[in-house]
Amino acid sequence: MKTATIITIGDEILSGNTVDTNSNFIARELKDIGIKVQQIFTISDEVSEIENFLKTALENSDLVITTGGLGPTKDDKTKKAYAGFFHDELVFSEELYEKLGKYLEKRGRIELLERNRNQCEVLSKATIFDNHYGTAPCQMVEQNGKFIFCLPGVPFEVKPLIKEQIIPFLKQQWELSFIHTRIISVVGVPESLLSDTIEGWELALPANVSLSYLPVGTRVKLRLTGTGDNQAILEEQLEQLIQPLKSLIGNHVIAWSEDAIENILASVLFDKGLTISTAESCTTGQLARLLTSVSGSSSYYRGGIIPYFTEMKSQLLNISKDTIKEHTVVSKEVAIEMAKSCQKLFSSDIAISSTGVSGPNKGEDGKDVGTVYYAIAKGDEVRTFHLFLPGFERNDFVNFVSQKIIETLIVWLEE
Amino acid sequence: MKTATIITIGDEILSGNTVDTNSNFIARELKDIGIKVQQIFTISDEVSEIENFLKTALENSDLVITTGGLGPTKDDKTKKAYAGFFHDELVFSEELYEKLGKYLEKRGRIELLERNRNQCEVLSKATIFDNHYGTAPCQMVEQNGKFIFCLPGVPFEVKPLIKEQIIPFLKQQWELSFIHTRIISVVGVPESLLSDTIEGWELALPANVSLSYLPVGTRVKLRLTGTGDNQAILEEQLEQLIQPLKSLIGNHVIAWSEDAIENILASVLFDKGLTISTAESCTTGQLARLLTSVSGSSSYYRGGIIPYFTEMKSQLLNISKDTIKEHTVVSKEVAIEMAKSCQKLFSSDIAISSTGVSGPNKGEDGKDVGTVYYAIAKGDEVRTFHLFLPGFERNDFVNFVSQKIIETLIVWLEE
Repeated sequence: MKTATIITIGDEILSGNTVDTNSNFIARELKDIGIKVQQIFTISDEVSEIENFLKTALENSDLVITTGGLGPTKDDKTKKAYAGFFHDELVFSEELYEKLGKYLEKRGRIELLERNRNQCEVLSKATIFDNHYGTAPCQMVEQNGKFIFCLPGVPFEVKPLIKEQIIPFLKQQWELSFIHTRIISVVGVPESLLSDTIEGWELALPANVSLSYLPVGTRVKLRLTGTGDNQAILEEQLEQLIQPLKSLIGNHVIAWSEDAIENILASVLFDKGLTISTAESCTTGQLARLLTSVSGSSSYYRGGIIPYFTEMKSQLLNISKDTIKEHTVVSKEVAIEMAKSCQKLFSSDIAISSTGVSGPNKGEDGKDVGTVYYAIAKGDEVRTFHLFLPGFERNDFVNFVSQKIIETLIVWLEE
Repeated sequence: MKTATIITIGDEILSGNTVDTNSNFIARELKDIGIKVQQIFTISDEVSEIENFLKTALENSDLVITTGGLGPTKDDKTKKAYAGFFHDELVFSEELYEKLGKYLEKRGRIELLERNRNQCEVLSKATIFDNHYGTAPCQMVEQNGKFIFCLPGVPFEVKPLIKEQIIPFLKQQWELSFIHTRIISVVGVPESLLSDTIEGWELALPANVSLSYLPVGTRVKLRLTGTGDNQAILEEQLEQLIQPLKSLIGNHVIAWSEDAIENILASVLFDKGLTISTAESCTTGQLARLLTSVSGSSSYYRGGIIPYFTEMKSQLLNISKDTIKEHTVVSKEVAIEMAKSCQKLFSSDIAISSTGVSGPNKGEDGKDVGTVYYAIAKGDEVRTFHLFLPGFERNDFVNFVSQKIIETLIVWLEE
């Protein structure tokens, strides 16, 4: 099996200023064509450091991809390190300079700057892959049948380079074995109990198949990864392998192949032809974001209200002021009224609502940080739920609550 | 200066299944107390691999933090690797087992499982840091004045362990030099032109201060990082250093110290005492998420509408059906009406609206994928803007558009 190492270059990752999302994207794309990422190194923008890790990576892997360090500014040293490591020199490419001119012209920048000129200096023995979304070209060096790719760091540029050029190139160069993955989502069983329940099954898995446990909020994802020479046979093998799980843990499984919670819900909503709307106070749009992050979501998602100010709850969703006065705004009663009104307002089959205190201060009604009520209206029925999540950071809180609400809805829909 | 290496252990990161957010969090927290993260290694769940990288990390750094590989299930091998590397053995801790019992009891799990028992096996020479949010304890080994921390992988557990226990511990153990960072946000100047403009200034920076360029969407963040022995003097030094930038690029700077775009906007809104609301079609809640991710946002954010279905635009925001018919739903005219209605509905000083086609299919009105119109209503004035962003992934599209809308609003507010 072909293996890869990803090297992320940049002090902005090491200082915690930027989250590295490139590696995740690249790893996923490579996995899908049967290339196993063995290591990801995040290192600083120093020539010697880059050279060292190019060496380590090339010793261990068939493919090395570096991202970052190609901007037009002073803090970028990747190209120098490549030249040093491969005993090559940087040469100015008239062809690239012309292309860059056209690229900048399209964006209204007539005058080419000296710094952009530097971006057209490339290794003499590199193969160039055009960057259609930025000014730094992608270079590739081949050495002893291994490939080393030098990419810019901006995610908007990395993604199309990988997807549209590098992946097709690798598929053409190498005969790759297939990787197939099945993600099984289990809810309502703690990881340790789940592990006990399926221990016998797990121990009997064949050598070409591995299992991982990935806990996400209150859900545990079982990931089964198999490798093989024939895609159809591999898929069938995994399908057969998961059959015994149906009797072992079937009643706790909310999805046998989808991964992201929003995709699982989307499948169920598609299947049942149901529409949904959202009334979000404490999740402030995250439910809407999740529901609409699925392509085709306009067939089930009708829209949402974010009544952040208390008076907006009355004004937009007709929550009775008496209910708020009696039970306070963070209460199951308000959650229920929000869901019901929302369902009516958007004429949707289902509506979900959230109200809670994300902190850092107590709610205006004195409720503790971490208190959440949510409700789901489906047809004529409404159910309401309570969570208490103190100690969560603001965004973690919103993400956890949103995942949990969608999980709850899926469980209900699959009853 | 003390240095650190972070090791992320887990096949779920290497396979692209999970984005590693722990390293980012840890790096930021360490930077804040003057510890420089030199390298981040993401490696697989193999005993020998973990031992190898513990060795490399300890050779280079004063502090090593590993995350992951401590769950109760079979795919977790970190503890074994630690025992091997430190020539130590794992011993069962009665005290931890008792604490774990209480932890699980609180969560309604009376019966302790054998696997959870395994989690109470720790290195004989380790110092234990209690994990208040999960079942795997955090262990610390000291060797030749260096510290090695073994943490679980779940972000909700990692964050409080780092913040509440490890950071205070390190501050107590080491006399750390101070790090101070200033982030200056520049808009309306391409990175290369910006770099040319401030080249003389940059070359004159003293040795204890470094500069990085971080492009984010259409904004470029200049990050100035200084180190020193006295915090107040260091802060004053950076303050003095950025003074010349005011005449060089001052008219392009939207913030001299805030970093995240939502925090920059929040400062401006706080300062001016303005309120805001959102009407989001193509950003589907992301503007609301950004606006409310700032602590204290309830003082300026009033709420939002997500009129995803076209008919909801008429129903909730009174967009005239004639306007939609004449100009289609993805048009500047609709964006303007959305912003105006939203401003009125929420009685806010400002309202922002978005309408566009995120793809993968063309809009229902035939508009191309990547087309965006957005509008900002402020007092009696409305301004409208157009973007065209083909080739973006669905979520990247939403993030880019949301960043850009907020950036535009800030520029307007600071005119």
